Amino acid sequence: MAQSIRACVVGATGYAGIEAVRLLLGHPAFELTKATDRKIAGTKVSETYPALAGICDLAYSEPDPEDIAKVADVAFLAVPHTASLALTPELLALGVSVVDLSADYRIKDPAVYEAWYGTKHTSPELLEDAVYGLPELNRAGLEKLAERRAAGQAVLVAAPGCYPTATALAALPALEAGFVEGDLVISDAISGVTGAGRTPSARTHFCHADESVEAYGVAHHRHTPEIEQTLSGIAGKQMSVVFTPHLAPLKRGLLATVYLPLAQDAAPDEVYAAYTARYAEEPLVTVLPSGQMPQTSSVAGTARAQVGLGFDTRRRRMAIVSCAIDNLGKGAAAQAVQCANVLFGLPETEGLLGMAPIA
Amino acid sequence: MAQSIRACVVGATGYAGIEAVRLLLGHPAFELTKATDRKIAGTKVSETYPALAGICDLAYSEPDPEDIAKVADVAFLAVPHTASLALTPELLALGVSVVDLSADYRIKDPAVYEAWYGTKHTSPELLEDAVYGLPELNRAGLEKLAERRAAGQAVLVAAPGCYPTATALAALPALEAGFVEGDLVISDAISGVTGAGRTPSARTHFCHADESVEAYGVAHHRHTPEIEQTLSGIAGKQMSVVFTPHLAPLKRGLLATVYLPLAQDAAPDEVYAAYTARYAEEPLVTVLPSGQMPQTSSVAGTARAQVGLGFDTRRRRMAIVSCAIDNLGKGAAAQAVQCANVLFGLPETEGLLGMAPIA
Amino acid sequence: MAQSIRACVVGATGYAGIEAVRLLLGHPAFELTKATDRKIAGTKVSETYPALAGICDLAYSEPDPEDIAKVADVAFLAVPHTASLALTPELLALGVSVVDLSADYRIKDPAVYEAWYGTKHTSPELLEDAVYGLPELNRAGLEKLAERRAAGQAVLVAAPGCYPTATALAALPALEAGFVEGDLVISDAISGVTGAGRTPSARTHFCHADESVEAYGVAHHRHTPEIEQTLSGIAGKQMSVVFTPHLAPLKRGLLATVYLPLAQDAAPDEVYAAYTARYAEEPLVTVLPSGQMPQTSSVAGTARAQVGLGFDTRRRRMAIVSCAIDNLGKGAAAQAVQCANVLFGLPETEGLLGMAPIA
Amino acid sequence: MAQSIRACVVGATGYAGIEAVRLLLGHPAFELTKATDRKIAGTKVSETYPALAGICDLAYSEPDPEDIAKVADVAFLAVPHTASLALTPELLALGVSVVDLSADYRIKDPAVYEAWYGTKHTSPELLEDAVYGLPELNRAGLEKLAERRAAGQAVLVAAPGCYPTATALAALPALEAGFVEGDLVISDAISGVTGAGRTPSARTHFCHADESVEAYGVAHHRHTPEIEQTLSGIAGKQMSVVFTPHLAPLKRGLLATVYLPLAQDAAPDEVYAAYTARYAEEPLVTVLPSGQMPQTSSVAGTARAQVGLGFDTRRRRMAIVSCAIDNLGKGAAAQAVQCANVLFGLPETEGLLGMAPIA
Repeated sequence: MAQSIRACVVGATGYAGIEAVRLLLGHPAFELTKATDRKIAGTKVSETYPALAGICDLAYSEPDPEDIAKVADVAFLAVPHTASLALTPELLALGVSVVDLSADYRIKDPAVYEAWYGTKHTSPELLEDAVYGLPELNRAGLEKLAERRAAGQAVLVAAPGCYPTATALAALPALEAGFVEGDLVISDAISGVTGAGRTPSARTHFCHADESVEAYGVAHHRHTPEIEQTLSGIAGKQMSVVFTPHLAPLKRGLLATVYLPLAQDAAPDEVYAAYTARYAEEPLVTVLPSGQMPQTSSVAGTARAQVGLGFDTRRRRMAIVSCAIDNLGKGAAAQAVQCANVLFGLPETEGLLGMAPIA
Repeated sequence: MAQSIRACVVGATGYAGIEAVRLLLGHPAFELTKATDRKIAGTKVSETYPALAGICDLAYSEPDPEDIAKVADVAFLAVPHTASLALTPELLALGVSVVDLSADYRIKDPAVYEAWYGTKHTSPELLEDAVYGLPELNRAGLEKLAERRAAGQAVLVAAPGCYPTATALAALPALEAGFVEGDLVISDAISGVTGAGRTPSARTHFCHADESVEAYGVAHHRHTPEIEQTLSGIAGKQMSVVFTPHLAPLKRGLLATVYLPLAQDAAPDEVYAAYTARYAEEPLVTVLPSGQMPQTSSVAGTARAQVGLGFDTRRRRMAIVSCAIDNLGKGAAAQAVQCANVLFGLPETEGLLGMAPIA
Repeated sequence: MAQSIRACVVGATGYAGIEAVRLLLGHPAFELTKATDRKIAGTKVSETYPALAGICDLAYSEPDPEDIAKVADVAFLAVPHTASLALTPELLALGVSVVDLSADYRIKDPAVYEAWYGTKHTSPELLEDAVYGLPELNRAGLEKLAERRAAGQAVLVAAPGCYPTATALAALPALEAGFVEGDLVISDAISGVTGAGRTPSARTHFCHADESVEAYGVAHHRHTPEIEQTLSGIAGKQMSVVFTPHLAPLKRGLLATVYLPLAQDAAPDEVYAAYTARYAEEPLVTVLPSGQMPQTSSVAGTARAQVGLGFDTRRRRMAIVSCAIDNLGKGAAAQAVQCANVLFGLPETEGLLGMAPIA
Repeated sequence: MAQSIRACVVGATGYAGIEAVRLLLGHPAFELTKATDRKIAGTKVSETYPALAGICDLAYSEPDPEDIAKVADVAFLAVPHTASLALTPELLALGVSVVDLSADYRIKDPAVYEAWYGTKHTSPELLEDAVYGLPELNRAGLEKLAERRAAGQAVLVAAPGCYPTATALAALPALEAGFVEGDLVISDAISGVTGAGRTPSARTHFCHADESVEAYGVAHHRHTPEIEQTLSGIAGKQMSVVFTPHLAPLKRGLLATVYLPLAQDAAPDEVYAAYTARYAEEPLVTVLPSGQMPQTSSVAGTARAQVGLGFDTRRRRMAIVSCAIDNLGKGAAAQAVQCANVLFGLPETEGLLGMAPIA
């Protein structure tokens, strides 16, 4: 067998981080050599996460770049925004490639980043070469990065946010094919509670979240500019999104229902055909039979996305497209591993073909 | 104490029906004299619903109009559409007022009813006098009905559907005040599983519904024409709705998030003020503080609605208004009782001021 | 109408406290004059609990005994143990009767309290007169307290814990009738997450508690001595309990399944008859038909208990008795109000006859 | 790579059947050649289970033994009891080895089977050679079967029930080591709703099962004789069990909390040490650190079991042992695959080392 690629997960107690740990532990080509958490360094991972008892013997360590560089070819950063700004330049300088799950290198325009995240971008010089890690959109970019990495450079992938991933996959074929009229799209999304993070709070308390749904972050969620950047890139013109996330009582799963006003001559059949054609060769994206909408449980725990389409043609033509992903899977850690697979010349779906439990 | 008003619930095994039973059992002015279910007539209600063991001694009976007329002043029909077409004319002729929770008398234009429900309307002559039972919109109409009832006539209320109730309450003040631009509104809604009915099916199985969300009935849900009729009535012009319901893993609760494009001169503060003013005297509708969005658990088990507003003013002006109700409460049985309170000259909120359990 | 009895809830942000608030707001005879919370004094209750927006205008205040005494005839203490030790003597001295939901005055032997709670009992002189507030067991004691209160004394009720309530109601008729053999009973119980308290923690995070069950506090839960004291009192001899609580993914609800070894001559029919006879006149306890076991949702949000019995007679005779309560209702706040109703000469079930929502 | 072992799942729409499908689709050595369902033969599996859209192209076929024999070396029977009685003899005669997930060949004494299952056992001659497929207990028996299979015989494994698996794993080390006093054990268990089967019913309706727990099948659940047979086999004497299953609102997961009265000289440390020693080499059973109890989510979707121990030593010595499994995993399909791995000379955990998603 080929030598393992050594991987470190930085911020391995949060939900995205521990999902990366789980995926890497089960991955045939990566070897998890380090999992860091500043607050509980020294503690065994399985003490915090008993699901890993008898499976993972690693203890959390400090996120020290030099230590990481000694044992890792690639670091997955599952840290809050700004923490990546602090770590990434140093890791790259030490020769460690970075797949960053934070928002720090997603937004190409540092002024937009600064406006939405309320903090200065301290390494804007890295933004140009960072590749936004949505393989279904940017595979060529990732492959070029893989070449540079193979040539000895440490490289940087900015793994997309969960809502932007689902919204982009829902809108991509229609936008690309020019079926969308105007420049305004509505993305109405529902997320499971892992999306709110692992830090206990009034809002993530079981008794608050259970048996209830609510909208949050209306008109000011930080994924907004990321969605707009991606949709604009696809459309080749400035697009706006009105984005409303909701919280629902499930652990994992994200459904984005995207409203796409259609040009008057866009026939539903044609639009549907554009989706099946666009995703025919995508191993992790499935377009459901016409008229069938996806449910999030179908992709829970996986790297997969399912897309379903409906059409309202009564007065205005509108495509209503739902995309279901696991916010921690295709929406975070699994997509990060998908990108890392490309970076290291592995089959893109290596270690990522698990199926959602049925029921 | 005044004499009780005798009430019958027809279709008292479905969720809306048994919720009406529960409300009437706890109501100081109504006396539940009969609960019918064709299939299990003879069985005790508490056998089907052990929550009522030791509380309700009634057995289900057949829904025979003459029997109902002997013991009831008012019948709550919690039956599937078309079943009400069969019963209502006869009950009215026998002098029993009807609060119909089915869709049969909601749509004023029988042709629209027939197109969406795929069945002939067999008593269109009742449509004109039937009052659509959304008190916050039609209180005057209900009061006129109360006068006719007091004068000895049996009268008919068409209690609104759950999605139309929430969508209407979310849009009403803005539409009424003329803040909405254009004639297209999007209502993106999430319902608990009671909304899918009590008949066991693959879709209502715990293991299908739990830990998942999904859109359904996209662009062809039967509440669409009812929503359009109500919004058009408020706006004074033909309005369209693109309506997408979702199913989420909760028992009760419905959240409609409604996207209202605003006229360019409509300031968010003004719009918000229109909501607080419009609902200031409404005992069952609460507008939350600016920027706060409602969660469905706040109204679970109650007759109440909560409304919250957000505004996107970056490029296009859009109000994003969420209305939370209990689909079986304000969205069905409690609203039916609210209407019956008006019909019988009782305080409108009699028996309806219960509060949602907190956690 | 008679003058209201003025009530204060101390510790009104925790789940039991806010449930007491909810019950008192809807109670015809009590008037909630004060709700305290030391940490967020000044904040409106409805800000913390939006379910009360438009319903309750009170702001939290400091739990100052003198202030309480000015506005309250009775104080419900929904505080952690030891906090009641600090407040109760002072409130009584100021003439305010106390219904204490904490554990501080439940255990008659201060040495046992000190051993299990790890803290000194600072007012053991109050223990003798404090009445353990399980009306189905101690109604006479509560009525004597009511007489003393009517004569002008401030009196003290120690409201039972949730697990002790359910275990006692499950075992009471069999123990009282002498059907139980030996001195060891097993109580295996399952609680909803409100039982773990409102303070956010890793264990109450939605994503930890959802979709999982687990035992906790095995062989050392603090309700153990309270259960043993109650069962011993009923049996007239020292009883032991092996008590294992479990956590399940629901908000409210507690099911105790109690294993009672039966004397060889105890016929199941006889034992069942003892239960129906014992609880025939109890308005809040329902014995289900033979062979039917209760589910917690049947009593959620209520002051009620349901009891069901099964028998294993194959080799050893064993009664398996399940009692379902709402841990915040009959297991905490509603039982506290039930006791207060007795204390103030009201009908025992005043304000407590609400029914669980069905579905 | 070695040639695939061809596998058929009979009854592949039920939860255990489709879980077997999922495991075999992801298994490196087995090839799923057929999935049968009598009622919907002809339908694609992915139509019934959209989670498999784009993953599995198989359509359901009729469960015809001759057809099965043409394409399968082994058949996994995920059928109701008696259906296996009809199929197994024929499949064996046709040379197809059988791993039977039904109860038909678990009970060695046909009279006991007939008493509990209310039906005649029509192939008692197969019972002697059938091996009860709990590898942690019967590995040697399975290996002998593997030899016979390698020699060309078709062989039969009776895969254990879910409750018997968890109860046996909880009691095994203590019973084997002679620490248990007397002959009566209590197993109090909680299962997720998949345990109630996929057929929609009032009891599996989301709105019945959600937010509630209840006991069922008290003192007459059919897993009782299977548990007693296993425990008696381990103890070398007749053991009785009082077994109470509960239903809780989760999809997958089963927790058995088993009460083991200990001999007076059995020290907790010694008993705990017996568990860690007994399971030290078991790849799928993890004993948690002393005092820590397992939660079912730690093993959801996996072939794993976790065991935790508590001790009550106050008056009587009692071990309280919790075993968590996934009722469809180690409690059904994954254990069946574990047995099949042994039968076909594969590593016992091949395809079974997946980890539970954390959150």
